[in-house]
Amino acid sequence: MSLIVQKYGGSSVADATAIKRVAKRIAEAKRAGDDVVVVVSAMGDTTDELLELANEISPLPPLREMDILLTAGERISMSLLAMAIANLGVEAQSFTGQQAGVITDDVHGRARIIDVKASRIRQALDSGAVAIVAGFQGVTEHTNDVTTLGRGGSDTTAVAIAAAIGADVCEIYTDVDGVFTADPRIVPSARKIDRISYEEMLDMAASGAKVLMLRCVEYARRNGVRIHVRSSFSGREGTLVTDEHADAQEEGQMEQPIISGVAHDRTEAKVTVVGVPDVPGTAAQIFEVVAGADVNIDMIVQNVSAASTGLTDISFTLPATDGQKATAALQAVQGSIGFDSLQYDDTIGKLSLVGAGMKSHPGISAKLFGALRDAGINIEMISTSEIRVSVITRSDQLDDAVRAVHTAFDLDSSDGEAVVYGGTGR
Amino acid sequence: MSLIVQKYGGSSVADATAIKRVAKRIAEAKRAGDDVVVVVSAMGDTTDELLELANEISPLPPLREMDILLTAGERISMSLLAMAIANLGVEAQSFTGQQAGVITDDVHGRARIIDVKASRIRQALDSGAVAIVAGFQGVTEHTNDVTTLGRGGSDTTAVAIAAAIGADVCEIYTDVDGVFTADPRIVPSARKIDRISYEEMLDMAASGAKVLMLRCVEYARRNGVRIHVRSSFSGREGTLVTDEHADAQEEGQMEQPIISGVAHDRTEAKVTVVGVPDVPGTAAQIFEVVAGADVNIDMIVQNVSAASTGLTDISFTLPATDGQKATAALQAVQGSIGFDSLQYDDTIGKLSLVGAGMKSHPGISAKLFGALRDAGINIEMISTSEIRVSVITRSDQLDDAVRAVHTAFDLDSSDGEAVVYGGTGR
Repeated sequence: MSLIVQKYGGSSVADATAIKRVAKRIAEAKRAGDDVVVVVSAMGDTTDELLELANEISPLPPLREMDILLTAGERISMSLLAMAIANLGVEAQSFTGQQAGVITDDVHGRARIIDVKASRIRQALDSGAVAIVAGFQGVTEHTNDVTTLGRGGSDTTAVAIAAAIGADVCEIYTDVDGVFTADPRIVPSARKIDRISYEEMLDMAASGAKVLMLRCVEYARRNGVRIHVRSSFSGREGTLVTDEHADAQEEGQMEQPIISGVAHDRTEAKVTVVGVPDVPGTAAQIFEVVAGADVNIDMIVQNVSAASTGLTDISFTLPATDGQKATAALQAVQGSIGFDSLQYDDTIGKLSLVGAGMKSHPGISAKLFGALRDAGINIEMISTSEIRVSVITRSDQLDDAVRAVHTAFDLDSSDGEAVVYGGTGR
Repeated sequence: MSLIVQKYGGSSVADATAIKRVAKRIAEAKRAGDDVVVVVSAMGDTTDELLELANEISPLPPLREMDILLTAGERISMSLLAMAIANLGVEAQSFTGQQAGVITDDVHGRARIIDVKASRIRQALDSGAVAIVAGFQGVTEHTNDVTTLGRGGSDTTAVAIAAAIGADVCEIYTDVDGVFTADPRIVPSARKIDRISYEEMLDMAASGAKVLMLRCVEYARRNGVRIHVRSSFSGREGTLVTDEHADAQEEGQMEQPIISGVAHDRTEAKVTVVGVPDVPGTAAQIFEVVAGADVNIDMIVQNVSAASTGLTDISFTLPATDGQKATAALQAVQGSIGFDSLQYDDTIGKLSLVGAGMKSHPGISAKLFGALRDAGINIEMISTSEIRVSVITRSDQLDDAVRAVHTAFDLDSSDGEAVVYGGTGR
């Protein structure tokens, strides 16, 4: 008998038929003798529909009200799922974030979980019921205001609850069979990864792999929660995200593949600050301004200064959604910093090769650059870390780049194509 | 400066345009210097859509989950309304039933309010904000479970909050200009009633007048809350429901009209128990069985027993929605009680003439029966109380009956027709 947390995204509960199918899977786990806690996202398009309603009402809705509005989505999906499970003769009780004891800070729209007081979930389990918990939402400790956790929030809810109740595993159900060596939509021969370390998964997520959000993996690593990413459309084993060494020793799998996979990301943009005086402190000034606008920077490249002018160019990448904010902040200080102009480019793509094995294998970068050169793909920026190499290309060349690198590192599967089931949740 | 509770039904917040219109009215009241608490129902068809979803999932959904599901509706409307008000430059904060301190018993689906702990509403008002409260919902005291108040629940929420914060008036906004002497859809010459006592309003509501629900008026009478029923589509004064005598003396309106109005109800059905042994205790047995099935009975008629057989017939009316339950319960005891058969008729209509004045005017019933006879309408059952006479007719004759009685008692307006704006809320 295990204690299992299962998380289902929006596409797994998109309509009544999908909800009944998920209910059946949950009831089977319960009947097999497991204690089951389910975390659920809002149904399919609910969140988008609510956002559209809010936009019709107000261009800048107060964030507190936005959070109350959006959390209606999980309230609907969780109660419908509890009904569907009850209809199969298995007792089920649904809980809002507040009822489940998910305590957050008060940053509406992207709150962080600071505690999970899971007494009601434990009560439900003790009484023999399945506990259904609304993902993506929590409540502030003192004012009892409703908050949302931002993108990927439901995954984080699931991991946080798994940590709080000491679950044996946190199963994240999605529309693919697990974590792949590359996005199967782009590389049909991508292989499913059976087991991946927290660190590699973190780098995959940070590099654009959408199957798990960064903060959810961070939370899992910090609290030692085993994550099993798997499909809600099949019964197949998925990908286990766990502490590599301990588990590998246990199960005699010391030999890990050197490269985990190839991630890609098309959501970034590039800002180039042209003609920056090459004197100490200027770069710091620029990035202080960007940080002050609450924008996270990813890669940074500074060209060698031209001796004749004493000027240099500084390029950096950032989420394209923050492009406006960052460029506006920089324009406001153009006079005081003294640069010539700003260039903005949102037609870039980022490819990242991720793998714990590359630390001790110096030829990795060279092989990567060679593969891209052979495919006729130009590299615009490069950044490396202990277990990752990332390059920026033109957006329209990114798919070709991913396929070329995937093949060059022998990641292609020999046994048929990966299955993609369509749709994404939150 | 007044302290006002305003309640808006589903048709007043049916879409973004309607929500903005209501927001404007609220912002105007706030800018005029009043403190405003708003109670809001779910948008237009939201509740029906959620019910339909639940029906697709399960034929008999657990009531606790049903309540969580349905309360999503007010969560959406209240946050959108708060956004719309904020967009007009007036601060607004929305509160769920739980946040607003609406404590109920644990009877899911038709919970009763047992307390309102309005500290957060008062805080919002003290900070200069408009407080928006979700109608129709509350929370149990100890388990913190979400409950709904059943039909007319949002009106009851509004009155309960008005009582808790000592509001000067509770304005119930609807799609008609107030309480009328008859339903303006049936009697175009119906007059708006400017002022009505709690007792008469109770009898109007109990007799089928849909503009206010019975329990809301009961709560208002018990707590001395003045209700102002008015239209959200016009600026006109509506109907004041209040303690008749105190207010009338204050304002020199001692002369009250004898008759308040003519209410009608097409939601009842008639059950006739045929061939009941006319011995002591049989009627009690029958009604114990019906009460045991949790069915409320309205009118009862027992025929004179036929001397030759010692058998009698007993007829009673009940909500048609409970017809199945009541007849099933009676069929189960047919043997032990020993009646011949059951007849069920859901094509009846009820007309009620209501007015405090009729206590001291013995000719009222005679005039009523005469008006119906002159209109060619057959009376099937009669019941009378101190301030009401009700008769059962064929359903398809009910409209004619209402018009005939309305005219006979000189209730027709001389100054044009009543305005009906369409739609109903919850």
